[in-house]
Amino acid sequence: MRTVFQAELKQVGDELVAIARLVRQALSEARSAFLETELETAQGVISNDARIDLLQDELDERSIDILARQSPVASDLRTLVAALRMSTSLERMGDLARHLAQDARRRFPEAVIPERLADDYARLFELDLAILDGVIEMLETRDISFYERIAEQKAQVSAMHRGILDAMGRPDWDAPVHTTVDVTLSARYLERMSDHGIAVARKVSYLVTGQWAPPA
Amino acid sequence: MRTVFQAELKQVGDELVAIARLVRQALSEARSAFLETELETAQGVISNDARIDLLQDELDERSIDILARQSPVASDLRTLVAALRMSTSLERMGDLARHLAQDARRRFPEAVIPERLADDYARLFELDLAILDGVIEMLETRDISFYERIAEQKAQVSAMHRGILDAMGRPDWDAPVHTTVDVTLSARYLERMSDHGIAVARKVSYLVTGQWAPPA
Repeated sequence: MRTVFQAELKQVGDELVAIARLVRQALSEARSAFLETELETAQGVISNDARIDLLQDELDERSIDILARQSPVASDLRTLVAALRMSTSLERMGDLARHLAQDARRRFPEAVIPERLADDYARLFELDLAILDGVIEMLETRDISFYERIAEQKAQVSAMHRGILDAMGRPDWDAPVHTTVDVTLSARYLERMSDHGIAVARKVSYLVTGQWAPPA
Repeated sequence: MRTVFQAELKQVGDELVAIARLVRQALSEARSAFLETELETAQGVISNDARIDLLQDELDERSIDILARQSPVASDLRTLVAALRMSTSLERMGDLARHLAQDARRRFPEAVIPERLADDYARLFELDLAILDGVIEMLETRDISFYERIAEQKAQVSAMHRGILDAMGRPDWDAPVHTTVDVTLSARYLERMSDHGIAVARKVSYLVTGQWAPPA
């Protein structure tokens, strides 16, 4: 009985990793769509998001089924409840990747952002992808030494997000209004992505140590 | 034993209602702060948000404790898992009310939004408050007849949100860049608020009927 249960818990963990990998792929493709104005790549991200939503639903149903049949307690119970929470964060990260792809599609063949912000956005995507890589490592290995680096990367994203808002406040900002709107929203999507990433990383860290890391 | 358990489930339900009421109060005060440029009201919303976060943490711990001690199955299990989910949505709605109050504080004594959008924003706040009223009614009474009206109000919020984005795209939009940024973000906060509201309403509806309502 315990062996079946441990196998079921492991499967939940494997499915979380599978969802995180799909989100990473979505964000990587959203980056190409967004920074290289690739319409077909954007379409792919948008249509594939339904698969992430479906996997999240399946994972949730499986977790509730395990709760009902196995009545876990202590750390096993916390692992399952955390899985429900983490799947919600990952699903939301998939939505944010889709929003970025939708921005790219709406402005195609124009770029969403002005050329002067291209380097900043390339760095923001890179940081969010690195955060997702760290989250996947933590989900797979339960090695909490990744947490600190993820928190640093998240702090960098927040600082860059503030920097972009500041740039729009300066007198030399001469982009058209629709670009100001697009930059405001897309920079926020990238910042929210890092928020959800650190939230997942904190939960893994809590499951391993029994202590909440300070909020990043 | 069953009686204790039912009392515990009822307490979880009561606490969800208590959190929802605090969120409603936060949004109502954020409206005054935002539309009437009231600095002290804004400060109040910002400092009271910690109380919503604390109540959510307590509700989560209580739900996990009940899961561990009572090993509920079937609809009782789903009720508890849904409570975990709904508390997350309500906590996030509290964050969004705080963001709106922070906007008001940052721009004080100026208004966040241009005069020409004042009526639209008044209506958006009113709709989100009505959605929260409906959510509170559903949590208290389990009467799912409120769901349809909430879905309609949510659709109105989405349409108004699109209308505001469109208004910023027209040639007569002459607001300063920082106002464009503020309108873009604050309109999104109000739209996200309605998303979380309908998500909670759908979960209550699911718990009562066993069927998911179509996404609003």
